[in-house]
Amino acid sequence: MATQGQVITCKAAVAYEPNKPLVIEDVQVAPPQAGEVRIKILFTALCHTDAYTWSGKDPEGLFPCILGHEAAGIVESVGEGVTEVQPGDHVIPCYQAECRECKFCKSGKTNLCGKVRTATGAGVMMNDRKSRFSINGKPIYHFMGTSTFSQYTVVHDVSVAKIDPQAPLDKVCLLGCGVPTGLGAVWNTAKVEPGAIVAIFGLGTVGLAVAEGAKSAGASRIIGVDIDSKKFDNFGVTEFVNPKDYDKPIQQVLVDLTDGGVDYSFECIGNVSVMRAALECCHKGWGTSVIIGVAASGQEISTRPFQLVTGRVWKGTAFGGFKSRSQVPWLVEKYMKKEIKIDEYITHNLTLGDINKAFDLMHEGGCLRCVLKMNE
Amino acid sequence: MATQGQVITCKAAVAYEPNKPLVIEDVQVAPPQAGEVRIKILFTALCHTDAYTWSGKDPEGLFPCILGHEAAGIVESVGEGVTEVQPGDHVIPCYQAECRECKFCKSGKTNLCGKVRTATGAGVMMNDRKSRFSINGKPIYHFMGTSTFSQYTVVHDVSVAKIDPQAPLDKVCLLGCGVPTGLGAVWNTAKVEPGAIVAIFGLGTVGLAVAEGAKSAGASRIIGVDIDSKKFDNFGVTEFVNPKDYDKPIQQVLVDLTDGGVDYSFECIGNVSVMRAALECCHKGWGTSVIIGVAASGQEISTRPFQLVTGRVWKGTAFGGFKSRSQVPWLVEKYMKKEIKIDEYITHNLTLGDINKAFDLMHEGGCLRCVLKMNE
Repeated sequence: MATQGQVITCKAAVAYEPNKPLVIEDVQVAPPQAGEVRIKILFTALCHTDAYTWSGKDPEGLFPCILGHEAAGIVESVGEGVTEVQPGDHVIPCYQAECRECKFCKSGKTNLCGKVRTATGAGVMMNDRKSRFSINGKPIYHFMGTSTFSQYTVVHDVSVAKIDPQAPLDKVCLLGCGVPTGLGAVWNTAKVEPGAIVAIFGLGTVGLAVAEGAKSAGASRIIGVDIDSKKFDNFGVTEFVNPKDYDKPIQQVLVDLTDGGVDYSFECIGNVSVMRAALECCHKGWGTSVIIGVAASGQEISTRPFQLVTGRVWKGTAFGGFKSRSQVPWLVEKYMKKEIKIDEYITHNLTLGDINKAFDLMHEGGCLRCVLKMNE
Repeated sequence: MATQGQVITCKAAVAYEPNKPLVIEDVQVAPPQAGEVRIKILFTALCHTDAYTWSGKDPEGLFPCILGHEAAGIVESVGEGVTEVQPGDHVIPCYQAECRECKFCKSGKTNLCGKVRTATGAGVMMNDRKSRFSINGKPIYHFMGTSTFSQYTVVHDVSVAKIDPQAPLDKVCLLGCGVPTGLGAVWNTAKVEPGAIVAIFGLGTVGLAVAEGAKSAGASRIIGVDIDSKKFDNFGVTEFVNPKDYDKPIQQVLVDLTDGGVDYSFECIGNVSVMRAALECCHKGWGTSVIIGVAASGQEISTRPFQLVTGRVWKGTAFGGFKSRSQVPWLVEKYMKKEIKIDEYITHNLTLGDINKAFDLMHEGGCLRCVLKMNE
């Protein structure tokens, strides 16, 4: 390609400081170095984790940066030694890498590859511990190793999932975060079995993906818990419970509704009080609660140890336990075979220039996922 | 037997009020009613849970009562409808019942049978919600459904494990609580696999049984953590760590010693701060921490939810997850085949009349289990 080996100047949404509107800027994107891939992002969605870091509450948050981690695009060029993708490949950038070589990848017990974590956590690339983004020579930090709010981004090759070129990128971009996180929490982390009773706290995209996953796993009851009763209802939720409708604690409401508690619960909000309720609504002897939401820095979960001694299990999940490079393509195939939903989560479509409006929509409710078209 | 159907007057150690010395009294033990078994207790050991309730910190504690839950004896008589044991059978009373009929027993997921829980928690028998113990007509509460600090006790038939009559009762009495709790935490709850790195917080009987269980499961490193370095060393512990030898938090000490954390940790003390350390010394991605110790009433565990989201699992265990009536006899067989230790945990032998001295020994350290001979 004509751009290969060249610095590309393109549009990106830059977060200069916490809580200040993102600014669409002309950004210089350096060529990929060894083990890196430069991707032309065609579509990106917004996720609450972007808003969380943007809010300034993320202790790892660095500014100025380019946010965004749920996207799809086409490889523009690759650096030295990159063998698994080539220019023209359709890809999904993955904030959770998969190197297949580190202690974590080899363990068979987790998807939390550690290969590039120190760099992505610091907003830079592994090779030279520097950013590939700059504006007039001033570096702009990467975010989550993806930075998809840019028309071009550079990511580590261990963070790129190559997908079916027939897949619609304006849809499968959602497989970069929220939908797999919910499905995987059910399938990989909790391993919900047929007949199980499930409670889901928070019915955003992740919570509804949990519902979808639980339905496909054969759960007998899927209880959605949310303070907004006007939530979407076509993902598998069989009963809605609004904590505002009760005087007693929500964990007691659920225990009473289910003759002793649920088999599995999922916290999809990031609220430590809700995390406690999610654990304590579980059935004695076997109930398992999975934390998915990201709590604000410094906050802690707590409960009486008796809750665990009497058989409840407290765990968590990141990216639903999916191995990104290996399994995102499989999720794309499942979507192509109509075995999982994506379209139904997309409530809004805008362009990169509308990104601040898109964040407003997310905070207003009534929005699950807003997908931004990048090349307008 | 001559005593069948009759009230038996025998010696028992009565706890009249918290923290006051136990009093050896002549106690009247009523005959077993339907579904009940009267047992002549030959040997009982002391466990920290007895001391916990005796201390007054147990919110379920009722006085006056007869404590004791780790014992062995011979069935004296049975009530109506009891079919699985008969007079003369050698048995171990089990504080955790197993009815094989309730939701819990049928689940296949837990050993926490609920059949007689409401009665044992209230210090009475299910049949008439009354005690079988009295002194001159004044009732004395049962404890944990076992009350083994009495020469005769009455228990529910679902709480009696019939064992090999060849087994030495002065030894296998330990299979009523501490040893199975430690072994089962490893085998049933954590499911430690060969090569795993294990940390054990608190090296009393339960902690040492965890070490024994971990050794038999093939753990590669078994790190014992205790502030008393003069602990016993022949149960499988491969390394000792004394938190007092370090300035940094013990979880960090263990993470540093193990290149990222242990695969499994076990809290065998009942201290909520240690429970947190036990979780946080676990390896990211898969480390599992099992709470065994019983914390004081009202105390809570806490941690950052990030600990769980990054793959650690927090769980607990009661009686090591063993199904009591089904598996205690199997543990007796393992002891008879020399596949598990018991004798090595018995550091002292006294008689019922010495029970207050036995409690003193337990608190002094240097004592693992003190077995009391009942019929002197």
